Amino acid sequence: MKHMVPRQAELDTPCLVLDVDQLEDNLRRMQHLASDAGKDLRPHAKTHKCSALCAKQVEMGAIGVCAAKVSEADALVRAGIGGILITGPVVTAAKLARLMKLVRQSPDLTVVVDSPDGVAQLDRALDEAGLAMQVLIDLDVGLGRTGVKPDRSQVLVNSVHSSLRLTLRGVQAYAGHVQHIPSLIQRADQSDAALRPAVNLYRALQTGIPSCTVFSASGTGTHSMDLGVPEITELQVGSYALMDAEYLAIEADGEPFRPALRLLTTVVSVDHGRHVTVDAGLKSLYRDGGAPRVIKGGGPDLIYDWFGDEYGRISHSGHGLLPDLGARLEIVVSHCDPTVNLFDRYHVIQNGRVVDEWPIDLRGCSQ
Amino acid sequence: MKHMVPRQAELDTPCLVLDVDQLEDNLRRMQHLASDAGKDLRPHAKTHKCSALCAKQVEMGAIGVCAAKVSEADALVRAGIGGILITGPVVTAAKLARLMKLVRQSPDLTVVVDSPDGVAQLDRALDEAGLAMQVLIDLDVGLGRTGVKPDRSQVLVNSVHSSLRLTLRGVQAYAGHVQHIPSLIQRADQSDAALRPAVNLYRALQTGIPSCTVFSASGTGTHSMDLGVPEITELQVGSYALMDAEYLAIEADGEPFRPALRLLTTVVSVDHGRHVTVDAGLKSLYRDGGAPRVIKGGGPDLIYDWFGDEYGRISHSGHGLLPDLGARLEIVVSHCDPTVNLFDRYHVIQNGRVVDEWPIDLRGCSQ
Repeated sequence: MKHMVPRQAELDTPCLVLDVDQLEDNLRRMQHLASDAGKDLRPHAKTHKCSALCAKQVEMGAIGVCAAKVSEADALVRAGIGGILITGPVVTAAKLARLMKLVRQSPDLTVVVDSPDGVAQLDRALDEAGLAMQVLIDLDVGLGRTGVKPDRSQVLVNSVHSSLRLTLRGVQAYAGHVQHIPSLIQRADQSDAALRPAVNLYRALQTGIPSCTVFSASGTGTHSMDLGVPEITELQVGSYALMDAEYLAIEADGEPFRPALRLLTTVVSVDHGRHVTVDAGLKSLYRDGGAPRVIKGGGPDLIYDWFGDEYGRISHSGHGLLPDLGARLEIVVSHCDPTVNLFDRYHVIQNGRVVDEWPIDLRGCSQ
Repeated sequence: MKHMVPRQAELDTPCLVLDVDQLEDNLRRMQHLASDAGKDLRPHAKTHKCSALCAKQVEMGAIGVCAAKVSEADALVRAGIGGILITGPVVTAAKLARLMKLVRQSPDLTVVVDSPDGVAQLDRALDEAGLAMQVLIDLDVGLGRTGVKPDRSQVLVNSVHSSLRLTLRGVQAYAGHVQHIPSLIQRADQSDAALRPAVNLYRALQTGIPSCTVFSASGTGTHSMDLGVPEITELQVGSYALMDAEYLAIEADGEPFRPALRLLTTVVSVDHGRHVTVDAGLKSLYRDGGAPRVIKGGGPDLIYDWFGDEYGRISHSGHGLLPDLGARLEIVVSHCDPTVNLFDRYHVIQNGRVVDEWPIDLRGCSQ
């Protein structure tokens, strides 16, 4: 027996809803952009943390997905997703042991390395397990978070190249510090400057090492520029699928990707003068990435601000009416990644109806 | 067959560890303070989100626990915890339906009300379900988040009193805006000023309504002052159990409660000049409540700062050594409540050994 299909208005709040038509528009559009430029798409799963959404990305043409952590890769392998790239270095015994299990199940798994020590540990773990795997050199192109500086990468390249267990497949160069620069022209300039040493290194590697055919890069903020860099072979964009207020706030190159993700919240207390109180606070709308946008439930002039762990404050930018007790608001979240990580599921919506529920099965996978 | 007991140093990171001896010290101490002052303790479960920890609090003398949301109360009822007070108003049809189920299972459940509309909805739901329940008037003593101003509460009191389904048990007055004032004397002054109208109202209610015997108030920042307010009958403190850097940063009245909760994280990337990178970022250490404190793994002069969703940056306040690749750090988190909500379990530690694992079974209960 089938459940009655509930309306969006019947969902308990706070909760996340995903407009499936808008989502598919976003996925299709990025896939076309990549394909038209002769590039592969390997979207980042850390953003949406949902293997059902990964499956949709792969179905539309993605060659696999990226994972930030080993535990995310583990959940993806369990869900049957292939072509996984782990975008951060894996360095402890516990994580290497887990990685070995994953390589056994999913031989095309790729991981980045950023230090000779890390390579030595990985090589030893593979040797003990009797396995081999492919790696990318993680290049630090200015963020300073992980990666080796391109002009100091030779020792690392040599250590990978001399390992019998590792195949050097190429480089990763994520310009995370550039993605949210508001001006498009400044973003393009800085992206170009950041990537140039990585491009030069990749050219040199390609010449000497035939297995070296992958240059993985990009993010939602620089995707249009990266499409024009001939050396880049694949885009590891993430936020374009769901979108958030932080990415809506920067200048887009043409039509911006549109928000498919919204947070629903309800007014639970009124009669406080210039504001009312809603049921979404720090624990359901992560405070990062600037101001969320209230898009439905009381006009465009309502402002959300955090009001402790459990609550938010809704005020009016002018002197308009505040929503009533029990009113429901739709909000575009500030920064999608950490907010998604607060929930167990997406309610999938089409024309105001709940048509499906997708588990956020990578939630909490921070290890 | 029993598993080998792992050492703390073998736990994969990032993860939360809970020093059980320190935790029990904190629990015992607050229980003694309350009992000695002739007050009840009803600690807030929203802080630690763990029914096993609630059971310990009740075992030590707490009369029950507080829950912020209906879904938290649901998880607590399922875990067999009694004496639950829901500290926020419950106003939508979906939540009232869920509340009715809980009242049936747990007849001593109490909820706060803060508007005549809310009372009317609750009364109707109880009437349809053939149930009755006890309520507290939620008083807004300055935070402006939920609650009715004491001087405007008469209509609300009348609406509760005239309902055949509701028993008015007393008031709740949470001075949330006062809890983190750094100076003890300023905190005491403002707490006193905030509570005075609530105290006067409670006295008047007590005289006229015999069932009115509960004045629920307090937080970790004002507990020592609230112990001296004769009208307060119970303390709904939360953070004292785990403690965090935000509460350690304010002036304590005597010995502060000590941190029982720590986040473990590992250095995953080095060779970045003045910092190294660890594996805990926004998704495992919530960015709220000021600076976390690095307490072990490289001396007291290391500084943590957030470095995106998955990573943190560790720098040195002077020119000392930075920790090596693979080094493990222990951190007192900034604000315990939203950080706990990012994890599924506590690793319970005693003398460096992992002695138990407690599910954070209220995690994600934001509805």
